[in-house]
Amino acid sequence: MSRLVRRLASHLAPKTVVRAHCDLPCGVYDPEQARIEAESCYRTIEKYHASADEHFRARAISIKEERAELVKHHLDVLWHDYFKPEHVATYPDLHETFWKASKAASKVKQSLDLEDAKGLLALIDRVDEMWKGTGGPGKTRLNGRPG
Amino acid sequence: MSRLVRRLASHLAPKTVVRAHCDLPCGVYDPEQARIEAESCYRTIEKYHASADEHFRARAISIKEERAELVKHHLDVLWHDYFKPEHVATYPDLHETFWKASKAASKVKQSLDLEDAKGLLALIDRVDEMWKGTGGPGKTRLNGRPG
Amino acid sequence: MSRLVRRLASHLAPKTVVRAHCDLPCGVYDPEQARIEAESCYRTIEKYHASADEHFRARAISIKEERAELVKHHLDVLWHDYFKPEHVATYPDLHETFWKASKAASKVKQSLDLEDAKGLLALIDRVDEMWKGTGGPGKTRLNGRPG
Amino acid sequence: MSRLVRRLASHLAPKTVVRAHCDLPCGVYDPEQARIEAESCYRTIEKYHASADEHFRARAISIKEERAELVKHHLDVLWHDYFKPEHVATYPDLHETFWKASKAASKVKQSLDLEDAKGLLALIDRVDEMWKGTGGPGKTRLNGRPG
Amino acid sequence: MSRLVRRLASHLAPKTVVRAHCDLPCGVYDPEQARIEAESCYRTIEKYHASADEHFRARAISIKEERAELVKHHLDVLWHDYFKPEHVATYPDLHETFWKASKAASKVKQSLDLEDAKGLLALIDRVDEMWKGTGGPGKTRLNGRPG
Amino acid sequence: MSRLVRRLASHLAPKTVVRAHCDLPCGVYDPEQARIEAESCYRTIEKYHASADEHFRARAISIKEERAELVKHHLDVLWHDYFKPEHVATYPDLHETFWKASKAASKVKQSLDLEDAKGLLALIDRVDEMWKGTGGPGKTRLNGRPG
Repeated sequence: MSRLVRRLASHLAPKTVVRAHCDLPCGVYDPEQARIEAESCYRTIEKYHASADEHFRARAISIKEERAELVKHHLDVLWHDYFKPEHVATYPDLHETFWKASKAASKVKQSLDLEDAKGLLALIDRVDEMWKGTGGPGKTRLNGRPG
Repeated sequence: MSRLVRRLASHLAPKTVVRAHCDLPCGVYDPEQARIEAESCYRTIEKYHASADEHFRARAISIKEERAELVKHHLDVLWHDYFKPEHVATYPDLHETFWKASKAASKVKQSLDLEDAKGLLALIDRVDEMWKGTGGPGKTRLNGRPG
Repeated sequence: MSRLVRRLASHLAPKTVVRAHCDLPCGVYDPEQARIEAESCYRTIEKYHASADEHFRARAISIKEERAELVKHHLDVLWHDYFKPEHVATYPDLHETFWKASKAASKVKQSLDLEDAKGLLALIDRVDEMWKGTGGPGKTRLNGRPG
Repeated sequence: MSRLVRRLASHLAPKTVVRAHCDLPCGVYDPEQARIEAESCYRTIEKYHASADEHFRARAISIKEERAELVKHHLDVLWHDYFKPEHVATYPDLHETFWKASKAASKVKQSLDLEDAKGLLALIDRVDEMWKGTGGPGKTRLNGRPG
Repeated sequence: MSRLVRRLASHLAPKTVVRAHCDLPCGVYDPEQARIEAESCYRTIEKYHASADEHFRARAISIKEERAELVKHHLDVLWHDYFKPEHVATYPDLHETFWKASKAASKVKQSLDLEDAKGLLALIDRVDEMWKGTGGPGKTRLNGRPG
Repeated sequence: MSRLVRRLASHLAPKTVVRAHCDLPCGVYDPEQARIEAESCYRTIEKYHASADEHFRARAISIKEERAELVKHHLDVLWHDYFKPEHVATYPDLHETFWKASKAASKVKQSLDLEDAKGLLALIDRVDEMWKGTGGPGKTRLNGRPG
């Protein structure tokens, strides 16, 4: 995104800082939830290719579908509930990133290509950066993210 | 959103038309799914206020929570899977509309104010316009939307 | 069902009109919920036959199973909660229609024949007629069914 | 199950073979699934009245809702999938019984009256009779119903 | 397990008898819930081998996965909520039995061997003995287990 | 647990190391999934006490129930699928820890006491130690646990 658009967006952004507040039930958010499920997709694709057994492969496909659906759900929760209008000013690509990540998770459902799972993980890494950059670890976890 | 931003967005939008394709399982999408659940929220709030019975009220609250969650889910599916990059060129407020609609559904969970349910329904109407404006009824329903 | 049974049923039907009332959470019902899922089944079968890709086909089968299950669920809700004893007097085939529709949805799970999906849609159309004939659009939707 | 009972059952089985077929996944059905959940509703109502604690009572209400929903689901499965057209000939009240049982489960959601839970259990007993009368224990359980 | 270990365990077991109490929502527990789902797994494997139809087989695999997951869930509920510390004194193999049963259910997901389903059923029989031996039928069912 | 019991357990433990293997779909496990949900319970209790609003409190109770149920589910997955017999030799308190953690999660459902949520978190910390002590981060996450 060009610098102009960023500046424009920052001008259009709400001037008065909207109080970041937590929806009940949440307050606790962490992109780890999406990432763990996305790692499951990655490993499932890997194991699919390593096996010649039909029964195993059929299971792998339906498990991948389910895990990718969970990735989408956890991303939705972050986008709907954690991120607030003032964060869009800081990260003008916020909506696009989430949209791409959701579409990448759909792609992982449709694909057996490990590259697609990597692409999804990279987008979750970007979400993770935004979460950190907006104070996520301190604001949402009880004691930050454990090592 | 100002005209300038729309024009700007339309310039930044991908020039080569990305082939609109349907994810399996979908191909069939209709904002009616979100609207029916949102109407349930509306009626539930109405009935909540009309009753003085504690048991009834407790049930109404948890039912509203569940229905509003389904609204969010159906909106997510439309946003992730039905809408494509070329639609953003036509509707530069697409992401914002969905984001607001999701946050409005969260608000309905938190609120007992009928106005909040109305606000959610109005945003779903806007989504419905976008769905129609992008050929939704003909492209996604077998015989259009039944009267 | 024979004519005799219909007449007998209409004689046995409760004379005093039971007050139609709405369960919380519902009040809002629309056969569109079942129909949208059934259209998904239809399209999924169509796409299954159009593809030779094993991964795609395996996904189509499990998605069809899930969508047909949702058809059954939405039909159950209408049958349990929307329809009342006085409606059976008007539509003596009400129970049979729902039973057949549920079994048609089971058939769609088991089948890859587009005719089975059509049969299910036809039965949902019949349910839709009953819903309209008993005042469904005005009684259950906030502003009727949108065009 | 004794050999005598098995042989007797085979004599009582419908002579004209109506295409009794088992949906996959089922073949295994037992009204116990509905009854166990209905007993949970009963005990939950009992405990609700025995407690004065608000937190406990709020939990009881939402747990009752969930359990009654499961009763409805298990009844639906029996009605859709286990019972076949020839059974309606034997039990002309089959549809009515299931309809009443579903409505009784809805009533249990709405009520805190132990009598409503008893009414539901009585209807499940009737379903149980039909299941037994149509050879359910021998046909659907691996070794009949355990004592 | 050796007698020595049992005696040892009984010495280490809490002396003061912890009052067996029921969590809300339960109070009602029965290993029948797990067994019915495990019987579904058994029949599904049987039917899988009896069929040469690919569509049928794909459905059987995903249905088996789902049913085995429900077995695990029902076992978990019994282990978490029904059994109490004093029961471990009586049945020192309680944890091991549940652990093995859960792992046997995982095995049934991975396998098409009827012996694995039998192994799972045998472990559920052992759980059933423990449930009976601790007064389950009288304590948890309204009128014991129906014949 | 006494040293004697540990030694005894280590003697009874299987001598030949069972090959740790991953169930499909898993291979990816992390106690973070349970902890994040448990932190939600903690915050929900905290907010419950900070609010005097009935609607808010009713929502908090049902949200806490749901989150604590997810804690139990994530713990079950770790216990069933990640941990293997050779780990019991290393951690003879493995079963007891999981059992207590599940019961602590049940307690959190029943309680509004922040201490109960703390107790649950402490048990999840113990599970986390076992996961680390058995090589969890390297074996189950793609790149270990992110900071």
